[in-house]
Amino acid sequence: MTKNSKSTENNNNKIIEKIRIFDTTLRDGEQTPGVSVNAEQKLKIALKLDEIGVDAIEAGFPVVSEGEAAAIKTIVAQGLKSEICGLARTVQSDIDAALKCDLKYIHTFIATSDIHMKYKLNMTQEQVIDRAIWAVDYAKKHGVQVEFSAEDATRSDRNFLIKVFKEAQSAGADRIDIPDTVGYATPDYITNLVKEIAFNISVPISMHCHDDFGHAVANSIAGINAGASCAHVTINGIGERAGNASLEEFVMALHCLYNKKTNIVTEKLYETSKFVSNAMGIIVQPNKAIIGENAFGHESGIHTHGIINNPLTYEPISPELVGRKRWLQAGKHAGAHGIKAMLGDFGIKPSEEELKEIVTTQKNLADVGKSITTAELLSISGHIMGNTKFEEKFKLQDFHIVTGQNITPTAVIRLHTGGKDYITSEVGVGPVDSALKAIQKIAVEVANIKIREYRLDSITGGSDALAEVSVKVEDKSGNVVSARKSGADVVVASVQAMMDAINKIMLRKILQSDNNNH
Amino acid sequence: MTKNSKSTENNNNKIIEKIRIFDTTLRDGEQTPGVSVNAEQKLKIALKLDEIGVDAIEAGFPVVSEGEAAAIKTIVAQGLKSEICGLARTVQSDIDAALKCDLKYIHTFIATSDIHMKYKLNMTQEQVIDRAIWAVDYAKKHGVQVEFSAEDATRSDRNFLIKVFKEAQSAGADRIDIPDTVGYATPDYITNLVKEIAFNISVPISMHCHDDFGHAVANSIAGINAGASCAHVTINGIGERAGNASLEEFVMALHCLYNKKTNIVTEKLYETSKFVSNAMGIIVQPNKAIIGENAFGHESGIHTHGIINNPLTYEPISPELVGRKRWLQAGKHAGAHGIKAMLGDFGIKPSEEELKEIVTTQKNLADVGKSITTAELLSISGHIMGNTKFEEKFKLQDFHIVTGQNITPTAVIRLHTGGKDYITSEVGVGPVDSALKAIQKIAVEVANIKIREYRLDSITGGSDALAEVSVKVEDKSGNVVSARKSGADVVVASVQAMMDAINKIMLRKILQSDNNNH
Repeated sequence: MTKNSKSTENNNNKIIEKIRIFDTTLRDGEQTPGVSVNAEQKLKIALKLDEIGVDAIEAGFPVVSEGEAAAIKTIVAQGLKSEICGLARTVQSDIDAALKCDLKYIHTFIATSDIHMKYKLNMTQEQVIDRAIWAVDYAKKHGVQVEFSAEDATRSDRNFLIKVFKEAQSAGADRIDIPDTVGYATPDYITNLVKEIAFNISVPISMHCHDDFGHAVANSIAGINAGASCAHVTINGIGERAGNASLEEFVMALHCLYNKKTNIVTEKLYETSKFVSNAMGIIVQPNKAIIGENAFGHESGIHTHGIINNPLTYEPISPELVGRKRWLQAGKHAGAHGIKAMLGDFGIKPSEEELKEIVTTQKNLADVGKSITTAELLSISGHIMGNTKFEEKFKLQDFHIVTGQNITPTAVIRLHTGGKDYITSEVGVGPVDSALKAIQKIAVEVANIKIREYRLDSITGGSDALAEVSVKVEDKSGNVVSARKSGADVVVASVQAMMDAINKIMLRKILQSDNNNH
Repeated sequence: MTKNSKSTENNNNKIIEKIRIFDTTLRDGEQTPGVSVNAEQKLKIALKLDEIGVDAIEAGFPVVSEGEAAAIKTIVAQGLKSEICGLARTVQSDIDAALKCDLKYIHTFIATSDIHMKYKLNMTQEQVIDRAIWAVDYAKKHGVQVEFSAEDATRSDRNFLIKVFKEAQSAGADRIDIPDTVGYATPDYITNLVKEIAFNISVPISMHCHDDFGHAVANSIAGINAGASCAHVTINGIGERAGNASLEEFVMALHCLYNKKTNIVTEKLYETSKFVSNAMGIIVQPNKAIIGENAFGHESGIHTHGIINNPLTYEPISPELVGRKRWLQAGKHAGAHGIKAMLGDFGIKPSEEELKEIVTTQKNLADVGKSITTAELLSISGHIMGNTKFEEKFKLQDFHIVTGQNITPTAVIRLHTGGKDYITSEVGVGPVDSALKAIQKIAVEVANIKIREYRLDSITGGSDALAEVSVKVEDKSGNVVSARKSGADVVVASVQAMMDAINKIMLRKILQSDNNNH
């Protein structure tokens, strides 16, 4: 428990609370059905978690498999700043497996609710208490820090639960943890429960809340306010079923709404979220707090107008605080203020009348269900303002791709730019990859523009459902531009998004330098 | 307000609270940047919302565009059971636009926080009050129901806020709404705020909470418990930025955790969620409460073991309650109990020793980061149990596809089944569509198996990132089976998932009929 001091400091009689962040992305998060990360990916995620400043990393469940144990051992060997913890049932094989990974911190658990004791453990209350005491004692005898969880605590008999925690504490547990295993608790219930436990227990208390009713963050915070000093959380809120409390929501709510501190470097939240989402293959929905694509995006005229005058009108926090940038989008709800600001970003200044016509034209397009890209907005504006400069600089002449079983995916592309035709072919790991790489080959040669990120939103429905693609490109000065496109053919939509992004970055450059020369 | 009675009933002196559900999927939800639904889609979503039993549908913001107004008018003309509402600023053009849609229910709003009044409205407190009174009065004179929102209420001066609400009530407002516009409130803050407002106001109170810190559902419920009788919610929690309180989480929490009632037909929640996600193109993350893919999925051995003995050990509610089914998955964390149950589903009964070997083999695969499909589990089991019956019935011999600019996407497929080779070609809207349709052509002919759903999880990273595909197929008896596959080539992964699904449905049939004949 040597490192615990950093999370709760007593400074000149003024208690500065630093809430301890126990990250379980690599344990509860990895228990997401269908998710399996290999040892190399586990290590990479652990390094990211350490970098972002979590106090403890639950690296896995050693007894689960040999690969899991080996991965945990590798993480322990890194000597990270974060404490590394491993999960173990209250049985010797599990604790031994954890000790074999050189773990100095073991999280051991046994269920205490009637339903779990009857239907899963087939044990009496006495047997459960004996097992808990035995396990804590056994682990402590091996000199490790022990956190003891009473699984399904929120559905357990209150007196029995407190008895178990007291016994675990007497047996030497350094911390106790209160899991809301099926996400059934409410903030009021947690407040009451944690107060009673805190009254009876002197070691630090952790919360472990699941999100089955969307209450995980509020419940974790209710626990903190009632006396807990730590919460088990995961990046992107992944975990069993609906997942755990999300680290980013919990931390930002503590910092911004409750005036509490943590060791988290919030500016790295977004990149960490992206990293974990990619490594584990679990998508983040656009309307996810803090790290969803839309959390700092605005379309509606009223909101955009407010944001332009003062971002705090429609943003609870500055996006930079979590490593992000604000973005505006044209569309049906967009008003003149927003469109003016978006065009202004390219140095384009339409007259009042031109602006009105631009807004009407793009609203008409949006009314038929079309989402408008920035390049399209520029093209509309160029047309209305009679300025051919806004037109696309790269024109796609034709392309085709082939792929299949035992066929290397191959694309052939013909582009027209600067008065010349460029034809090239490329192979890739798939049809989209080969097509984008072929375009990139020309874009690098002509204008030093490269793909920075590719993104395909999920499709559900028939195999003919619309795919929505976005492509980010960057030029050699590090300017980044993205474009979106949707279509039933994922390859065609990807190629169009890429073309749009390249044209946007070219236009921005041309129009801005134009502007500077005036 | 005639219909309000159905939501709050006084039954023999015992108050049965029915919380009113005001759905704003079509207004706040549609303000999601980049989302634009056309009139036809809007109508379809409104019909679904009516079917699921929401008390009120905010159908849109009439003044935004002509298309928007026309779509709202069409929805009003349906004569649905749900009340239809439209949004309007406190200006005549907005209210007139709403009246022109034949709306009988107008939701009018003006901001009351200092930051909004100063930076967006550029108005004094007196001007804001005058405008609010004028708008409510003007709308009431046209005989419609009026709900009045004080935008950014949670960041408004408390005394001023209550004054505005009182004036709006005096002017005739039938309902008042408390928006937490930037999601900045906490449950305790809401409790305090709503109690004070409820003390001063006699008309029904609505909550409108945003999820910027993951508190939207808990805040909405805190409002209900403090005296509000209605919440503004959206399907899948979509809406500006991080979105609004999600209808499904709010309703299920009320029903299951707070013993309150609503008019929602919960069994239709899942299909409604899917419908809205598809229609609006906004994905739902797997770890989303109630309606995420994983909300009732289990892999870990401990959880699966519990679920098999009694589902309530690891599920807060029965999945059927929200129109869903539980599913189990093999993987690194899976234990013998889960694998046995999954094989049992196919009528396969391995010996203890065989089971142990099957579990070890699939864990070794999972350790290297491979997610295991059911067909793969069957193949592993067949191999270990020496039973060739578990082997795939349809073998993919070869295939290729072409697509491009001005090329009709085309696939050629060669399959081997029942000792024969089948070759066919198909065109489609994209390469995946053409490939799956070609396979389906053969599957229908040979075994009457059709595609029911295709799903592609989002990809972020480079254009060479892994795609994860799942395909659901069904036979003519209505049996449905799904299979997942991931790979860098989205076409190849889709074809493999389709093949896997067809083989699974065939195997299940063969093995189960085998079993029945024993």
